[in-house]
Amino acid sequence: MIIVMAMGATEQEAADVRDQLRQYNLTAHDNYGTQRVVIAVLGDVAPVRELLMSKLSIMPGVESVTPITRPYKLTSRESHPEDTVIEVLGTKVGDGSLTIMAGATILRGGAFKPRTSPYAFQGLGVEGLTYLAEASKLTGLPTITEVMEPSQVEVVAKHADILQVGTRNMQNYSLLTAVGKAGRPVMLKRGYGATIEEWLMAAEYIVSSGNPHVILCERGIRTFETYTRNTLDLTAVPLLHHLTHLPVVVDPSHATGKRWLVKPMALAAVAAGADGIMVEVHPRPDQARSDGEQSLTFDQFADMAGALNQIHEQVRTLIKDPFAMTGPVKVGGSSKH
Amino acid sequence: MIIVMAMGATEQEAADVRDQLRQYNLTAHDNYGTQRVVIAVLGDVAPVRELLMSKLSIMPGVESVTPITRPYKLTSRESHPEDTVIEVLGTKVGDGSLTIMAGATILRGGAFKPRTSPYAFQGLGVEGLTYLAEASKLTGLPTITEVMEPSQVEVVAKHADILQVGTRNMQNYSLLTAVGKAGRPVMLKRGYGATIEEWLMAAEYIVSSGNPHVILCERGIRTFETYTRNTLDLTAVPLLHHLTHLPVVVDPSHATGKRWLVKPMALAAVAAGADGIMVEVHPRPDQARSDGEQSLTFDQFADMAGALNQIHEQVRTLIKDPFAMTGPVKVGGSSKH
Amino acid sequence: MIIVMAMGATEQEAADVRDQLRQYNLTAHDNYGTQRVVIAVLGDVAPVRELLMSKLSIMPGVESVTPITRPYKLTSRESHPEDTVIEVLGTKVGDGSLTIMAGATILRGGAFKPRTSPYAFQGLGVEGLTYLAEASKLTGLPTITEVMEPSQVEVVAKHADILQVGTRNMQNYSLLTAVGKAGRPVMLKRGYGATIEEWLMAAEYIVSSGNPHVILCERGIRTFETYTRNTLDLTAVPLLHHLTHLPVVVDPSHATGKRWLVKPMALAAVAAGADGIMVEVHPRPDQARSDGEQSLTFDQFADMAGALNQIHEQVRTLIKDPFAMTGPVKVGGSSKH
Amino acid sequence: MIIVMAMGATEQEAADVRDQLRQYNLTAHDNYGTQRVVIAVLGDVAPVRELLMSKLSIMPGVESVTPITRPYKLTSRESHPEDTVIEVLGTKVGDGSLTIMAGATILRGGAFKPRTSPYAFQGLGVEGLTYLAEASKLTGLPTITEVMEPSQVEVVAKHADILQVGTRNMQNYSLLTAVGKAGRPVMLKRGYGATIEEWLMAAEYIVSSGNPHVILCERGIRTFETYTRNTLDLTAVPLLHHLTHLPVVVDPSHATGKRWLVKPMALAAVAAGADGIMVEVHPRPDQARSDGEQSLTFDQFADMAGALNQIHEQVRTLIKDPFAMTGPVKVGGSSKH
Repeated sequence: MIIVMAMGATEQEAADVRDQLRQYNLTAHDNYGTQRVVIAVLGDVAPVRELLMSKLSIMPGVESVTPITRPYKLTSRESHPEDTVIEVLGTKVGDGSLTIMAGATILRGGAFKPRTSPYAFQGLGVEGLTYLAEASKLTGLPTITEVMEPSQVEVVAKHADILQVGTRNMQNYSLLTAVGKAGRPVMLKRGYGATIEEWLMAAEYIVSSGNPHVILCERGIRTFETYTRNTLDLTAVPLLHHLTHLPVVVDPSHATGKRWLVKPMALAAVAAGADGIMVEVHPRPDQARSDGEQSLTFDQFADMAGALNQIHEQVRTLIKDPFAMTGPVKVGGSSKH
Repeated sequence: MIIVMAMGATEQEAADVRDQLRQYNLTAHDNYGTQRVVIAVLGDVAPVRELLMSKLSIMPGVESVTPITRPYKLTSRESHPEDTVIEVLGTKVGDGSLTIMAGATILRGGAFKPRTSPYAFQGLGVEGLTYLAEASKLTGLPTITEVMEPSQVEVVAKHADILQVGTRNMQNYSLLTAVGKAGRPVMLKRGYGATIEEWLMAAEYIVSSGNPHVILCERGIRTFETYTRNTLDLTAVPLLHHLTHLPVVVDPSHATGKRWLVKPMALAAVAAGADGIMVEVHPRPDQARSDGEQSLTFDQFADMAGALNQIHEQVRTLIKDPFAMTGPVKVGGSSKH
Repeated sequence: MIIVMAMGATEQEAADVRDQLRQYNLTAHDNYGTQRVVIAVLGDVAPVRELLMSKLSIMPGVESVTPITRPYKLTSRESHPEDTVIEVLGTKVGDGSLTIMAGATILRGGAFKPRTSPYAFQGLGVEGLTYLAEASKLTGLPTITEVMEPSQVEVVAKHADILQVGTRNMQNYSLLTAVGKAGRPVMLKRGYGATIEEWLMAAEYIVSSGNPHVILCERGIRTFETYTRNTLDLTAVPLLHHLTHLPVVVDPSHATGKRWLVKPMALAAVAAGADGIMVEVHPRPDQARSDGEQSLTFDQFADMAGALNQIHEQVRTLIKDPFAMTGPVKVGGSSKH
Repeated sequence: MIIVMAMGATEQEAADVRDQLRQYNLTAHDNYGTQRVVIAVLGDVAPVRELLMSKLSIMPGVESVTPITRPYKLTSRESHPEDTVIEVLGTKVGDGSLTIMAGATILRGGAFKPRTSPYAFQGLGVEGLTYLAEASKLTGLPTITEVMEPSQVEVVAKHADILQVGTRNMQNYSLLTAVGKAGRPVMLKRGYGATIEEWLMAAEYIVSSGNPHVILCERGIRTFETYTRNTLDLTAVPLLHHLTHLPVVVDPSHATGKRWLVKPMALAAVAAGADGIMVEVHPRPDQARSDGEQSLTFDQFADMAGALNQIHEQVRTLIKDPFAMTGPVKVGGSSKH
């Protein structure tokens, strides 16, 4: 943590800052410049980081307070250099293979649907869960479905193999804590208005509640552009591989909102290094009760899955070490760096 | 709903669109242009709006589908021209008076705190609720506090007079439905990434669940600007008065994140027509366990409250009818138009 | 153009709207709904589109005015279904090949540099242009460089083969008109705060000034995310191929601001269908006078160029017709649809 | 400037960073923490700030480089605590009075109009300038008009008293330098996609070119909200008064895009401490050749101007020292702090 004192701050004001730090067993290193004093704080700031920033910020003579370490720990690659690999019914996510969620490697189905309008179709509920479990039995594929409130976690965990937390619930802390206690992997979609740091902090809630099996899913963020529903932030893929050991999948259906943009963006996601792709598929999109506009037909899905696997194979040979160009962060032993 | 057919769409494609509409008992009005056909849909589109948009969008020959009516109904001023006035323990919100939440007209306190970091102070929980209820008894002022999950609604409603839904839970539909069934007014903060339309749809969830007493609270939206924590969208105040009958309050503390910006922005909010102001106050901000940076001291609060009341008085005389300049929408009988 | 009348608008108000339209030789088609009147305007709205929207919007009884055709014409694929292919010194851009700008297919160099700070290095000016022209002579490669004001167009056009308009000048209309009159292809970078529609309108300025040879360059847009300098909007690539016949290249260096993110994002851009890639390269990035942080070394560039060409080859075979999934827009004869 | 070394960075890597700093006559202060080394740079970083950040960022072992001083100097209140007051034909801007630009204190007219579409009305050009000069003679009021390219600066400066640089040209550095050399005050509108820091850097271009008379004009920024054309960032008003000595005016017409939102937002701007308001006025908005939707009639303008002056009077008495609550920055002698 770096505290920049204002030009003209007094000796006493700097002394008060040092006193405040001492109360938390932190040491202040003063750096005297030509125009102002800069105080570097060293020691384990993490446990009191937010509180301390709040307190220091309003002390007389303080110009700014800047944290220098990241607020997430368990999800950070610095603290855990090896990739997290998640295994469900024999399928692995994050081991260098490509996971396609929709019916290829993992079955995807929505029983509870979060809808912007209270008048729209809200999903089939528990009945939908049993259909999904049945499909899993027939195919042998693991299943993923969304959970929307803490009280649903138990029943969904009973029927589905992976729990999904949706974009609108990314900062529903009660839900994050609840899925953190369920014995199932969790796919955490990025909030459409959330920064990457907030997303990792949300993952930190799940991991710190006891569940290390978190898959991150980029699904587009909200920007001023209106031609597409959201702006797919594909740069998040290599960035997250740098910052965290958790696997990263991409959902091009919700981000673009348009069926014909799904294939090119799925290919781009794989080329950027995504561990998986999640797409909307429907046998008859014109009869889907929701999200028809972005759903692929079975034929389109099969065609796309083939293309994705080929690009994935080639990208792996071309980029044995995708982060060879990485400058700053060095962490020992990770195959991704 | 307006369906624009593509240039070169066939007769049959337009006929298929009309067939689809007929299945929902809607009538198609064709408008033949020089370059393309435009089909206007009339009839009660609202109940099937989302489904229909999804289906029509993917039909061959369809270029675009544009809705022309707003998706919210109960919260719309068109359907309910009179202002909603909410009364709690003799205090009225939305009747033309200025409500100051922090200790002036309504007591504000957080028992459960939504925190970005799992390592930050999470509030005192039920113990905090009893302190708040005690303060209410001593002062006679109504209280407001945040509720974070459906299972908390009952206990919070027992101790507090107004339930608050926070910015990160604005689209937590389970929570919206739960507070919609509690017999208490609800203050719904705007999601920091939410449009005004989505905000009103979230209010619609509460109202359609049986609770018409919703107060909207603007608290800043996320933009590219980083000097302030969020960008306070004050234009939302007159805009909401135009679109809805619900009262609108403004929280300048969270939007700006800086104590010294609270007063000018609170004054601006009152000048823009806000029904109330909600601010963070703390007797010793440097000892606050959260949000100290944006909290006013008691003296600063008293000074600001006085200024707000004076500006409010004057704005009322200057703008007897703040919407006199309104062009488009005309609704009978509203004092706000 | 669709005019939605307010609920409760009078007969006379609708009649006034129709009168207004008649003055521009446009025909009104009325559509009577249960709650309101919707007037569809047909005829050639384009030449008076903005003026008419402005006038109609403020007429009494008008709720909203929505345009239904796109405001750009010459750059639209609807009006020009075939891909535009641009040829410079025997190199083709937009013909299905992959153009790599930095020294592979086209030489890139900045003589005039737009800098946020007046105190930063501003480029070598005309002296830099002669260096670039010399490099072109030695290698036989065409050159591209930025032009910053109308008075520079002539001298830059004399020395460089392609003129670049930078992100901060995307809506510098004087400059757009000036390069529209130069006999050189123009690469138009997207404004970091510009929508795709505004970008195409800026291209329309160039094309309507007489220069049909415009290359569009996506370089990231400004969002709330701060880990990366900007958010690279790769969905713009397939979207632009759908909306316009102009070639689209991607600049991953400026968008990400970090050298180690360049390669994965360049691969993703090619997988999404980009016609070319433009990157920053410097023999000794640590000695570069600007943009060193995002510059590749020669070795890194050579490695990346090889990978890009391989992915490009494979993507071409996998997606013979990248827009096979396109629903809505159908235009005759285009190989891209 | 603060350089955070990566966990695991070697002694040699830190030594290389110190060497680099020494080459610029800067001193490195090491701060050894439990997990990493943090190097504070003191000395006059400003002249080489950008170059140094670029170089250090890519050095091995460097995790991040954070500047701690602001990049603008001449426009900063730290370097110039007193308010800048601009006088034109006896009218003062920034002296505590309220300036209303549209015909009340300063006449506003557009001769050259920047238009998104090349097919829209582009202004009357030099002919328009003579009309404006004539109006000035008749009324004795100073005039303001927009200049769009360096070559127009001379002719516009001949006819108008204040030169306006529009939102799309805020980073047109050639134009900024040109108006920096004209002997006329300049009103610099905020770029709709620009941060406050970039805006001040643009002002720095003008001031460092020799012209200290710059008025800043907030006119809305681009966000995801689509009900209004842009989001008016009123918090920028007190924030700018804190950061800079230049006067700040607000344009509520362009930000909202709707006539009936102009009055409430103008009132809010004055309450937030704006030095002036600029609005669109037209005797017959329905016949305006551009921007009719947002123009006030003469009567509406007169009504609003009266209200603004009353609120301004009251705000002045209520907030003798609007920055009394300011914590961090302290600068000697300024009446605004």
